[in-house]
Amino acid sequence: MVIIMEHDATKPQIDDIINKLQDLGFNIHQSTGIDHTLLGVIGDVSKIDPRDMQVLPGVADAYRISAPYKLVSREFQHKNTIIDIKGVKIGGDEVAVMAGPCSIESKEQMMTIAEIVSNAGAKFLRGGAFKPRTSPYAFQGLGEQGLKIIREAADKFNMLVITEVMDKEQISLVSEHTDIIQIGARNIQNFTLIRALGSIDKPIFLKRGISSTIEEWLMSAEYILSGGNRNVMLCERGIRTFETYTRNTMDLSAIPIVHKLSHLPIIADPSHGTGLRDKVIPMARAAVAAGADGLMIEVHHDPEHAMSDGAQSLLPDQFVDLMKQIREIAKVIGRTIADARV
Amino acid sequence: MVIIMEHDATKPQIDDIINKLQDLGFNIHQSTGIDHTLLGVIGDVSKIDPRDMQVLPGVADAYRISAPYKLVSREFQHKNTIIDIKGVKIGGDEVAVMAGPCSIESKEQMMTIAEIVSNAGAKFLRGGAFKPRTSPYAFQGLGEQGLKIIREAADKFNMLVITEVMDKEQISLVSEHTDIIQIGARNIQNFTLIRALGSIDKPIFLKRGISSTIEEWLMSAEYILSGGNRNVMLCERGIRTFETYTRNTMDLSAIPIVHKLSHLPIIADPSHGTGLRDKVIPMARAAVAAGADGLMIEVHHDPEHAMSDGAQSLLPDQFVDLMKQIREIAKVIGRTIADARV
Amino acid sequence: MVIIMEHDATKPQIDDIINKLQDLGFNIHQSTGIDHTLLGVIGDVSKIDPRDMQVLPGVADAYRISAPYKLVSREFQHKNTIIDIKGVKIGGDEVAVMAGPCSIESKEQMMTIAEIVSNAGAKFLRGGAFKPRTSPYAFQGLGEQGLKIIREAADKFNMLVITEVMDKEQISLVSEHTDIIQIGARNIQNFTLIRALGSIDKPIFLKRGISSTIEEWLMSAEYILSGGNRNVMLCERGIRTFETYTRNTMDLSAIPIVHKLSHLPIIADPSHGTGLRDKVIPMARAAVAAGADGLMIEVHHDPEHAMSDGAQSLLPDQFVDLMKQIREIAKVIGRTIADARV
Amino acid sequence: MVIIMEHDATKPQIDDIINKLQDLGFNIHQSTGIDHTLLGVIGDVSKIDPRDMQVLPGVADAYRISAPYKLVSREFQHKNTIIDIKGVKIGGDEVAVMAGPCSIESKEQMMTIAEIVSNAGAKFLRGGAFKPRTSPYAFQGLGEQGLKIIREAADKFNMLVITEVMDKEQISLVSEHTDIIQIGARNIQNFTLIRALGSIDKPIFLKRGISSTIEEWLMSAEYILSGGNRNVMLCERGIRTFETYTRNTMDLSAIPIVHKLSHLPIIADPSHGTGLRDKVIPMARAAVAAGADGLMIEVHHDPEHAMSDGAQSLLPDQFVDLMKQIREIAKVIGRTIADARV
Repeated sequence: MVIIMEHDATKPQIDDIINKLQDLGFNIHQSTGIDHTLLGVIGDVSKIDPRDMQVLPGVADAYRISAPYKLVSREFQHKNTIIDIKGVKIGGDEVAVMAGPCSIESKEQMMTIAEIVSNAGAKFLRGGAFKPRTSPYAFQGLGEQGLKIIREAADKFNMLVITEVMDKEQISLVSEHTDIIQIGARNIQNFTLIRALGSIDKPIFLKRGISSTIEEWLMSAEYILSGGNRNVMLCERGIRTFETYTRNTMDLSAIPIVHKLSHLPIIADPSHGTGLRDKVIPMARAAVAAGADGLMIEVHHDPEHAMSDGAQSLLPDQFVDLMKQIREIAKVIGRTIADARV
Repeated sequence: MVIIMEHDATKPQIDDIINKLQDLGFNIHQSTGIDHTLLGVIGDVSKIDPRDMQVLPGVADAYRISAPYKLVSREFQHKNTIIDIKGVKIGGDEVAVMAGPCSIESKEQMMTIAEIVSNAGAKFLRGGAFKPRTSPYAFQGLGEQGLKIIREAADKFNMLVITEVMDKEQISLVSEHTDIIQIGARNIQNFTLIRALGSIDKPIFLKRGISSTIEEWLMSAEYILSGGNRNVMLCERGIRTFETYTRNTMDLSAIPIVHKLSHLPIIADPSHGTGLRDKVIPMARAAVAAGADGLMIEVHHDPEHAMSDGAQSLLPDQFVDLMKQIREIAKVIGRTIADARV
Repeated sequence: MVIIMEHDATKPQIDDIINKLQDLGFNIHQSTGIDHTLLGVIGDVSKIDPRDMQVLPGVADAYRISAPYKLVSREFQHKNTIIDIKGVKIGGDEVAVMAGPCSIESKEQMMTIAEIVSNAGAKFLRGGAFKPRTSPYAFQGLGEQGLKIIREAADKFNMLVITEVMDKEQISLVSEHTDIIQIGARNIQNFTLIRALGSIDKPIFLKRGISSTIEEWLMSAEYILSGGNRNVMLCERGIRTFETYTRNTMDLSAIPIVHKLSHLPIIADPSHGTGLRDKVIPMARAAVAAGADGLMIEVHHDPEHAMSDGAQSLLPDQFVDLMKQIREIAKVIGRTIADARV
Repeated sequence: MVIIMEHDATKPQIDDIINKLQDLGFNIHQSTGIDHTLLGVIGDVSKIDPRDMQVLPGVADAYRISAPYKLVSREFQHKNTIIDIKGVKIGGDEVAVMAGPCSIESKEQMMTIAEIVSNAGAKFLRGGAFKPRTSPYAFQGLGEQGLKIIREAADKFNMLVITEVMDKEQISLVSEHTDIIQIGARNIQNFTLIRALGSIDKPIFLKRGISSTIEEWLMSAEYILSGGNRNVMLCERGIRTFETYTRNTMDLSAIPIVHKLSHLPIIADPSHGTGLRDKVIPMARAAVAAGADGLMIEVHHDPEHAMSDGAQSLLPDQFVDLMKQIREIAKVIGRTIADARV
């Protein structure tokens, strides 16, 4: 931690702070500059709130110089985390493609869509059985029945399942049916939930909150890793800004930033990131070009009748075309995307 | 709902939309203007996502014209909701003052602070037993022991208790000890939790999320009211903006806006709203001047040793002075604040 | 400046930075901690961009520890700046009230409004002769004719004039007619304009840009002071956030923050800060309670026919009532507002 | 324009509004729904401020249904604008690459960098002679001498010049030396300047303001087109959000959005968009993948000694590698980038 004293801080003020911190077991390095005295606090400062220093008499400012996260950091683990799920890897050379409808609506719907997306090269089938909805009056998902449907559809087309958990009680039920547990943007700081994810044995897909800083997002991942579950992937899905044309503003620069700060894989979700079908395609290409380790894309064969988010779902042909384009883009930066089956 | 057709939308495109909506049971009013054709959709459109219209061929834009909330709206209930808790009212002429430390740390601490704040005129004692913390390594609260302490301190000084619930499982335990259940900013869209609050018989204090629009905040309140619990008060506690000098930017204009849109009381929390002690006092005065129905203020007799948020806690003398000032300001707009006891 | 080295920065990397900075004439204090080595750079670092350090090998982070502004800072001048204009003071005990229409429309309009607002106690008459408009097709103001009208109206009712300058060429013309030059939010970083204001002899009213940080705003004021003009007052008028209910989000916490960082007076403009008439009144009261040195309020006797911003203009009776309320609130914090004349 | 009446608006309130608007020459279509009456206002409503309707008694909301811009819209001109400068086209199949240092520092510097970037395939040489700087104490550019240097360097390597104009007075001087006039983000609503650009005969490169909505940005372009200059290209360079890791958040979704709303070309500037060298490369690739019509990239052969923005300037080898990558990505979407010369 660095503490900057005010221009006219007195010697007793400075000494008072030094004494306080020494009593707490820290070593202090003092630098006296032209304008300001600077105190470097040496030791494990993770339990001191910089604001508690900021309000002391004579202090101009105070901040931590180390990131508050540890296990998720690139400093802690230099090598990329590669998550292996039944032999399919996330975080390696191959860009993982996760596709499917927003909501699981029926067996027929899931079978139709699973066939389309797996033929085009997607290895993960997405779809929500429990839906977090802004309105209490909106469709809330099929629940357990939906979980069985997505599992059956994925198995038939040799895909892996990713689906969302909304609270701690749902974890064990959903875990029976899914390969990856998705945590939605609204639950990024539901600490009861994310703490519980630390002690289970399933990979976690952790969406960035619409107003999470990258640091807060990594801190939420730290909750999971600190509980013992190291298989966490992050997902950029758009942040809230002043611009209202799109539902959210997709922050693609988060991809290279996360790659620098952390060893965890990062996936991009242009469907939620833009909210509008015709913006999904260019942003999906851009995410791959920016180095994303995966894409999550909503696809629906009949989006006009989708029960949620039809407007941001790609049509089957659009998805097939997109897969061809991103396969070429991935090559340019030395990565691969699975071939189409047909 | 209003649907705006593109300048060059064709008649078949327009007819197609009209037919679709008529099939769903809506009446359509068509206005043909110089530049655009406009379709007014008459009926309960709450289940149509405007984006599903926006992506149809020929459509330039589409939006709902009614607010998505009902029970919380001023249209639904013209008269202010006044919440009566053991004879103390929130939402009437008296501005409710809730004060206490961020965290419950010990019996001695709570007794000391309860005496200070109740003598100054506060009728509600705040303090957290379960603490949502960004870092998994930070102090997480005393739990049940803390609940017993705050109850005892409040009872001794004839105060009411307000304390936070972090998840659905905690509701019944916390309800045994508290008079008001506080929901933190990070849980505003924890739908499992807020849905559960609809069926209990305790007043709810619902903090605005750091990136909640006023509409989303009211929708979360709607979850609670739609479950049958009408005793909800809202709390403005700062939103996330580009400005970094303060922890959050307190949006005081939310006070008159909520009063216009809704019948629910609105409280201001300048402690979290600014994050810095010397900004709490002017912003608390400002909140009362803007018409807030209450204030939540963090107070600590020894903030340098507080276990959390010491930097934003007022010192006892500061709180006493503030109470005198806001009592005078309340009078200017025809409201009252309880007298000091001593 | 503080430079934080990476956990695994090598000795040659550290030495390389030290050598570079020593060659530039700086003294370096090195602190070696458990996790990180810290370099304190002593000297005038205002010409080093911290990002130039951030990209050097082995550097984790780098930032300035002094504010980039000097002349505007409270450190440079402890005492409040009080601006004296023909005997009327801004920045002292009296809260200055500036009122009038958005645009100067006609002599009759200005005479009517000047009489109303001066009778209620306002000492400054506002009104735009040159209007910055988002649309090239909107009303652009009466120009020089407008300047003559506002001067005549102010003189008749013994008021002072404040009006806007949009570019450097207008300065000399507008200066002939006004007592205070207003710089709009969109020109806060029009460096050609603000540099030119440094060498004139008129007080400047500098609106915060809709996305200016407080630091950037103070830096723009620094441009003016560094040119020799010390009579600058700042004006908070709302910032752009994700919330769309109001035109802008008024950041009242900027009032106590500016008072801490700077000796310059700060005025609040709730008319632009909210954009809606019924929000102007509570926010004006709140601004005075928060300690604003003045208010700028749009008032129109016939807002339905105003040529701009009618929706945010108070009606005459509303303004009279507001003046009464804020006079009482000012007293609570030891300040005054001029009495009504009638 | 659509006006939504409140649930309980009275017939006289509705009639009053209809009469007012009819008197102004508009036709009104009235739709009476279950919850709300809706008034469609037919005619040229560009001069009515929707807020003036919002404050009328009985009105719940009011908004325009047509975009406020005309000449820049895709509705006005279906075909892409292709700007032809001495035979080099912007807005066609070829992605234009503009490269060079932030500031023009010396003849030697410009010759060195021009050779590097032209050999790699860039056709436009960028560099600032007049620099808008946040601090009055920072380097302000070489002025006219700088303009001569960049012209000479561009001519020698058969490149075109793009450089910035900061105010109206500089237009004629800069026009003598440049092929494209750049308008910086801080001047996007300097209406005196952008109005003046409408009557000159040089292509304009209009950067988005850090807090401009896409609509405001297009309105600023409308100022230029409405003055008669149709050769405007837009430039996305990052917007201000809550995230502080990068200087700005680059909004790549603006690329497909602008392509939908307008016929004007859109360029991406990842150097300012991210502010950090190692983020420039992935974001440049992403911009091309998203469909940008061009890139503006800062390059410096000795960024440690650059007079401004060294931290975001690519090294020569990085630029050469980037050009190879984006040439491949452009092909995937049917576009081209000029070959390297060597």
